[in-house]
Amino acid sequence: MKAVRLHSYHSSPVVEDVPEPRAKQPFDVVVRIGGAGVCRTDLHIIEQQWEDKSGVTLPYTLGHENAGWVHEIGSAVTNVAVGDPVILHPTPTCGLCRACRAGDDMHCSANSFPGIDSDGGMAEFLLTSARACVKLESGTRPEDVAALADAGITAYHAVRKAVPSLYPGTTCVVNGAGGLGHIGIQSLAALTATRIVVVDRNAEALALAAELGAHQTVLADGKHVDAVLELTDGNGAEVVLDFVAEQGAQQDAFAMTRRGGSHFVIGYGGNIDIPTIDIISTERNVVGNLVGTYNDLAELMVLAQQGKVRLHTQKYPLDAAIDALSDLDAGRVRGRAILVPDTAH
Amino acid sequence: MKAVRLHSYHSSPVVEDVPEPRAKQPFDVVVRIGGAGVCRTDLHIIEQQWEDKSGVTLPYTLGHENAGWVHEIGSAVTNVAVGDPVILHPTPTCGLCRACRAGDDMHCSANSFPGIDSDGGMAEFLLTSARACVKLESGTRPEDVAALADAGITAYHAVRKAVPSLYPGTTCVVNGAGGLGHIGIQSLAALTATRIVVVDRNAEALALAAELGAHQTVLADGKHVDAVLELTDGNGAEVVLDFVAEQGAQQDAFAMTRRGGSHFVIGYGGNIDIPTIDIISTERNVVGNLVGTYNDLAELMVLAQQGKVRLHTQKYPLDAAIDALSDLDAGRVRGRAILVPDTAH
Amino acid sequence: MKAVRLHSYHSSPVVEDVPEPRAKQPFDVVVRIGGAGVCRTDLHIIEQQWEDKSGVTLPYTLGHENAGWVHEIGSAVTNVAVGDPVILHPTPTCGLCRACRAGDDMHCSANSFPGIDSDGGMAEFLLTSARACVKLESGTRPEDVAALADAGITAYHAVRKAVPSLYPGTTCVVNGAGGLGHIGIQSLAALTATRIVVVDRNAEALALAAELGAHQTVLADGKHVDAVLELTDGNGAEVVLDFVAEQGAQQDAFAMTRRGGSHFVIGYGGNIDIPTIDIISTERNVVGNLVGTYNDLAELMVLAQQGKVRLHTQKYPLDAAIDALSDLDAGRVRGRAILVPDTAH
Amino acid sequence: MKAVRLHSYHSSPVVEDVPEPRAKQPFDVVVRIGGAGVCRTDLHIIEQQWEDKSGVTLPYTLGHENAGWVHEIGSAVTNVAVGDPVILHPTPTCGLCRACRAGDDMHCSANSFPGIDSDGGMAEFLLTSARACVKLESGTRPEDVAALADAGITAYHAVRKAVPSLYPGTTCVVNGAGGLGHIGIQSLAALTATRIVVVDRNAEALALAAELGAHQTVLADGKHVDAVLELTDGNGAEVVLDFVAEQGAQQDAFAMTRRGGSHFVIGYGGNIDIPTIDIISTERNVVGNLVGTYNDLAELMVLAQQGKVRLHTQKYPLDAAIDALSDLDAGRVRGRAILVPDTAH
Repeated sequence: MKAVRLHSYHSSPVVEDVPEPRAKQPFDVVVRIGGAGVCRTDLHIIEQQWEDKSGVTLPYTLGHENAGWVHEIGSAVTNVAVGDPVILHPTPTCGLCRACRAGDDMHCSANSFPGIDSDGGMAEFLLTSARACVKLESGTRPEDVAALADAGITAYHAVRKAVPSLYPGTTCVVNGAGGLGHIGIQSLAALTATRIVVVDRNAEALALAAELGAHQTVLADGKHVDAVLELTDGNGAEVVLDFVAEQGAQQDAFAMTRRGGSHFVIGYGGNIDIPTIDIISTERNVVGNLVGTYNDLAELMVLAQQGKVRLHTQKYPLDAAIDALSDLDAGRVRGRAILVPDTAH
Repeated sequence: MKAVRLHSYHSSPVVEDVPEPRAKQPFDVVVRIGGAGVCRTDLHIIEQQWEDKSGVTLPYTLGHENAGWVHEIGSAVTNVAVGDPVILHPTPTCGLCRACRAGDDMHCSANSFPGIDSDGGMAEFLLTSARACVKLESGTRPEDVAALADAGITAYHAVRKAVPSLYPGTTCVVNGAGGLGHIGIQSLAALTATRIVVVDRNAEALALAAELGAHQTVLADGKHVDAVLELTDGNGAEVVLDFVAEQGAQQDAFAMTRRGGSHFVIGYGGNIDIPTIDIISTERNVVGNLVGTYNDLAELMVLAQQGKVRLHTQKYPLDAAIDALSDLDAGRVRGRAILVPDTAH
Repeated sequence: MKAVRLHSYHSSPVVEDVPEPRAKQPFDVVVRIGGAGVCRTDLHIIEQQWEDKSGVTLPYTLGHENAGWVHEIGSAVTNVAVGDPVILHPTPTCGLCRACRAGDDMHCSANSFPGIDSDGGMAEFLLTSARACVKLESGTRPEDVAALADAGITAYHAVRKAVPSLYPGTTCVVNGAGGLGHIGIQSLAALTATRIVVVDRNAEALALAAELGAHQTVLADGKHVDAVLELTDGNGAEVVLDFVAEQGAQQDAFAMTRRGGSHFVIGYGGNIDIPTIDIISTERNVVGNLVGTYNDLAELMVLAQQGKVRLHTQKYPLDAAIDALSDLDAGRVRGRAILVPDTAH
Repeated sequence: MKAVRLHSYHSSPVVEDVPEPRAKQPFDVVVRIGGAGVCRTDLHIIEQQWEDKSGVTLPYTLGHENAGWVHEIGSAVTNVAVGDPVILHPTPTCGLCRACRAGDDMHCSANSFPGIDSDGGMAEFLLTSARACVKLESGTRPEDVAALADAGITAYHAVRKAVPSLYPGTTCVVNGAGGLGHIGIQSLAALTATRIVVVDRNAEALALAAELGAHQTVLADGKHVDAVLELTDGNGAEVVLDFVAEQGAQQDAFAMTRRGGSHFVIGYGGNIDIPTIDIISTERNVVGNLVGTYNDLAELMVLAQQGKVRLHTQKYPLDAAIDALSDLDAGRVRGRAILVPDTAH
């Protein structure tokens, strides 16, 4: 089958032929890929930033945002059948550790991360596990929802954790209106009656945010912290969802939270550096966020199938993977780039 | 009456005569002081560190940890009567704002802080409000519990918030075994079945911690982060209660938390400085903590009256306030110094 | 001033002249009534059903659902000023007991209930307390929101408690599409992405429910339990909000809940009678619901002012109070009857 | 191997030879039984009360409270190894449904219940699944903890759910001081600082309850509801854990709850029959309880291994199973009867 393989860091991956994976273990599932999202993390992988963390051996196949159809199942698989359309939770889990037994899939003590630390889904077929499969309704096309597998679940997970703080009368700031921010805005609108204020450097991004459900938008022009404080009677927001968290945005995000409020860190890159006296004198929190649970992904699929969460996508044939990566790097992708193998049709 | 008054920063307060306060407003309560705690914050006030935050005008009376007997009540007071022994929540609150209506007294939009921003309790009498009074059982001596009014409630509030994370099988690190840490250890032992690991620089403090309920103790000798990781199979603790949060202890505290865990900041002084990638890749939290609610103080009194929480105190006559402050500054106080006016007997 | 007074049980109240109330206590607030809701409970009061519970002495003024403008304030009132438009929480509270300090206003150990156990708001003026006043935005007319003071807050409080169980993919049954049910449906649509299934005996009520946000409607024709089970793959609903709870509807409501689900009892009249083996073998809950908190009412006002919650009202002059009661008794009121005194204009 | 087999209802089971089970499926685990609890439910099974619910075909092997050592594992088992001492969660689960993915094992849509609906553990060996195995510390003898597998987890699960309501100053009534009640009392003492009031008909049972941690005991002599109200200033208890729930005890239990409180139904047999007006006017809850989660059992093992939860047991050889059942039926067992096969030594 065809696959997008990385052979050496700092050079382009190659689309080449490799053997198809097979379902050998009892819970193995082989998925025929319908769509594989192209993510900024793929660029970082190529730039060698993840080498130490992932410990992966080159060459390997990229792609950690995947959806498709079940192609082959192991002997013990009961939750999906061959032909079922599925979206894949990014981390196949053991199902046996304390975290798995509490539903905290992203903290499984033995999880893997296809596309990061093993062969991923920029290919015609992907090997995963029964525990990663979320069945789709028959009318849903895998290529349309693939990007929700990782970007989507991450944004949704953060919103889900913030919901108890976002009763009517509160304000939630969405810091950064890119792909994750879009899911965040729509998830907030679906799950809460909070006022949604979106902050971004880009005026076009703000216009799109307003269409997706933002009640107010603020241009990140250096005066944006003051602007948010003004919108909130000088208090700041109960919750700031920080999808940027680099180049100082993380410091601004904390500064936008109110007394007793929380700064949810979702993006990454910068350091959060705060005097402890500011943390204790106002009892504010910094909350970490990571992917999400299997049930988070299943819930997000409900919202997607109800039309409450949508993501603009730009489709490329699998053969054009290198173009997609270049376009992403050059800022030419609007929404999310999705690779669609010929075998998906 | 006698009161301990600060006339100018960087010089000793003075014990002098001032007029007794009177209950003029409907909810006013005048308390005859039975005991007033002497706190490191009093030293910081004298050193002018709080001038900007408090905005207080000198001279004024110190003392923000107070208990005694109701001496006079305003026209609308119904919850206490003259003669009742009481401990005082540190911040008289409005009872009308959203925070008060949700029970979050420490976030009252109109609270005051006697001893910080207005006349405090290092005196024979103190003016406070009905909403600050927690009635004591008749057998409880105000001078014995006064230190729980501020130090106690702060530690208890943090423990109370951490309880849901501290099921059997978890580990809680208490970082710093001073006055607040002692309350923290005893509150943890009363409210949870977690394993309590105490970290401190001082071997004597650790010995006392073990008497109060610590299951394991770790000397903060530079290898303490590794020692905590070793005690937790390399994972770290579900919760770290950081009663120090200065001189690098706050960085160590974060490093001791496990995946999905929380670093509760209670002490202050240093900066918390963390790469956002470390926050998101492990989904860890930094949780701010401030004083506590009125109900927190009432609950802590239940534990104190059951003998589950105790604090070693060293009593001084009110006239010896300057000695008490000097002893505290010089590290000569074991437990908490308490000023007891002659009028308390 | 004019007031609707009940002089003896089982006979019509009388509109007559009584002295205007005055603000004598520090926290007293006198409100000029803009609208007073007419409720089925008023009929029950006249029928003597509440005599024992309320202990009220006749004659007295009816009306427990009130909104208007602040007319006079006591010496200690700071949260409202004369002229402010306000809606009134139904139970003025002490602000000092454990329940008040936890925000559970409806469990205040010393609350009163104007219109039930003391003079109510079917009058030109009403005496209440600062703690009962929720300020309205200037554009909101008291007569339009008065019915949210009691009916509204009760429905909203139940929804608010149910929210954590109502993630995407769940089903919530609203049993009874009358006044409270309408608020329930709209609150569910504002705060959750659950599927809303409405059950009622009346086809017109179901049609209106669909306009207000119901996703599916079921006629209560004897086969409605089966119909709900069928809509939920034989499982039942995660939550059933039972606004009827009489004449067997309460038994049907429990039968519609799924394993691990909850039956929220909001209406009253019947007995709930369930074998304990059915409770334990499926781990289902029966959840009591009462009015709501002050903050619940404040949040509901946010939804009302955003246009997310609306209630159809039928206005009557205060003089026509007896007509309004008759119309209600005869089933001639669509939505909620509201008495509007001449002094409201 | 030897097994205790039920051949026909209303007659004694038979200890006879049957083939040993083998691990055929990938997640199968065969356990060499160390101890199997004898439970009142076993008597009810023999009396044919469970025939319809379980749908089991006779003959089959009894025993749903099991612990032992891993004897053989399927090809995909990674969490236990041959020789490991284990206690078994009563319901092997699928690991794939929404409930499993949320940690709610007892609501698995595809679970089985060995000893109820398939061959159980009153035998030398038992076939179960990897997901049911909780590893024990090496020093823990399976026969000493077996009874915690079902009775224990049920009591612990209810306590765990009640913890958030049981802050210092509250009262928890334990209704029924039998086997489950004993676990309940000890779990309450380990996890909370609530006051524990135990109600039972039997004075000896109350004496034992006091040794296990009850702060007050009340003889169920017909005046016990009044006695509990008197102990709580006329208010009732925040939580009543009802381990009886038959013969009117369930009605008394509800009557002992306070405003806003909860009646946890754990035992079964009677009907709960309450006017809905009593539920809504005081906002009280009836909470169902069922077994517990895998993590509940793991936590309970931590408490058992710390010596915080103990259960008196009376050991019988497997051959004496009929004696054990007779002794239980005749009220001659103190604590829990445990069958210990010869192969356990």
